[in-house]
Amino acid sequence: MRVVTSRDELGRGSGGRRGVVMTMGALHEGHASLIRAARERDDEVTVTIFVNPMQFGAGEDLDRYPRTLQADLELCENLGVDTVYTPAVADVYRRPPLVTINPGVLGTELEGAARPGHFEGMLTVVFKLLQLTRPHDAFFGEKDYQQLTLIRSMAMDLDLDVDIVGVQTAREADGLARSSRNVYLSTEQRAQAAAIPRALQAAAHETDADTIAAVAAEHLAGLDVDYAVVRSSQMGPVQPGEGRLLVAARVGSTRLLDNCAVEVRSV
Amino acid sequence: MRVVTSRDELGRGSGGRRGVVMTMGALHEGHASLIRAARERDDEVTVTIFVNPMQFGAGEDLDRYPRTLQADLELCENLGVDTVYTPAVADVYRRPPLVTINPGVLGTELEGAARPGHFEGMLTVVFKLLQLTRPHDAFFGEKDYQQLTLIRSMAMDLDLDVDIVGVQTAREADGLARSSRNVYLSTEQRAQAAAIPRALQAAAHETDADTIAAVAAEHLAGLDVDYAVVRSSQMGPVQPGEGRLLVAARVGSTRLLDNCAVEVRSV
Repeated sequence: MRVVTSRDELGRGSGGRRGVVMTMGALHEGHASLIRAARERDDEVTVTIFVNPMQFGAGEDLDRYPRTLQADLELCENLGVDTVYTPAVADVYRRPPLVTINPGVLGTELEGAARPGHFEGMLTVVFKLLQLTRPHDAFFGEKDYQQLTLIRSMAMDLDLDVDIVGVQTAREADGLARSSRNVYLSTEQRAQAAAIPRALQAAAHETDADTIAAVAAEHLAGLDVDYAVVRSSQMGPVQPGEGRLLVAARVGSTRLLDNCAVEVRSV
Repeated sequence: MRVVTSRDELGRGSGGRRGVVMTMGALHEGHASLIRAARERDDEVTVTIFVNPMQFGAGEDLDRYPRTLQADLELCENLGVDTVYTPAVADVYRRPPLVTINPGVLGTELEGAARPGHFEGMLTVVFKLLQLTRPHDAFFGEKDYQQLTLIRSMAMDLDLDVDIVGVQTAREADGLARSSRNVYLSTEQRAQAAAIPRALQAAAHETDADTIAAVAAEHLAGLDVDYAVVRSSQMGPVQPGEGRLLVAARVGSTRLLDNCAVEVRSV
């Protein structure tokens, strides 16, 4: 496995199909499932490990975001990754960018409302990492569903020549979605957080949009809920058909996200 | 010469160096000089002719923008262009774009202040046309200096694998910068407009930033001037060294732009 820190060392691959998994490190089973999906579909797999300052707001956890590079590299090695790109900030941003990717209206809603500028920073770095790694396929988890939706929109609207592959959320035994931020939770908070997947499971039995949201809210009553909403599967206004229930809640100072598919019959 | 209306017909070229000249049609000597520059530098030259609705604001001249396709194709043929891509709106925009290119602060200044949303629309279509035509070189006139600067910034900040080549402004006998919008001018307005290049010429003899702007303003006294400002050559705040004098003025209802290099010794 090659570990490179400079864009110039990335090369152009050996002609096979290339897949990339973009991460901020602190790798867990969720990332492993993305890497396995890439390993299955592509000849050459690149993992990027880059904590992108541009997608963190003032007062967010940029400084304390977990960093576990040695363990991350071992995981990548064990999963058969070909190349890990773990650049310094200056290798990705040769200057503070003046021109960026504009996520549009969806970038200001839900997570975007809670984290102004987050999606602009996320899309800009995803775009740049696509430019630098030139994959045929790029893999993203469904756990960050709004992020995945925006990346798909970017690929569509900017005519990017890449397949965006969504991968099912990896979960703990009690259903909690895997996230690098779960390490912030105390034992007690960890138990409280399990209400989130329970809320999704209960709500997904319903088919009326308002009822889906209400059942989720009921199960989340003990938490500091930011939103529990039903949207279309592409995150437009909810309508009969495939929908998505999206939840964000704070447990202590840790913001947790989750979502699941729902079948909407009435709105 | 191939004339194609669909992105699928653009192909990937025959392996030589590719150059693209992006236009909104109504081709004139300014475009011809871009095409000649491309012809000189590249093996295959593509011209795009596309009046991009996204870069026109409400109340602007989208509907009356001059369209002269037959003459444009003849000019391209005579200049040895290989491919002309003249798509319908739906071929470029498969849907109204949700994710776009954000021009940042410079996109809100000068032309961006006068034409809100213009540079977002311009950069987005330039980006998309780069994706569709995949050139090694893309040629843009210095006449639209703010546009050229923003395109260079986009290429830098988004790691685009293309050389952005600026080409000197083509001028009429009396110095007026060539522009498709010059056809809007009456004979009398046409004579008034010649004050603009005279203003630039006079001001370029000065070396103090304020004096440069003042001399330009003096020569433009008869016109409806929007701005006559000195910036750095990259359009940051003016400082000693290479600078740029940028002028926008309305003659009747026609907005005219021009600019020239200046050597700034004091600010």
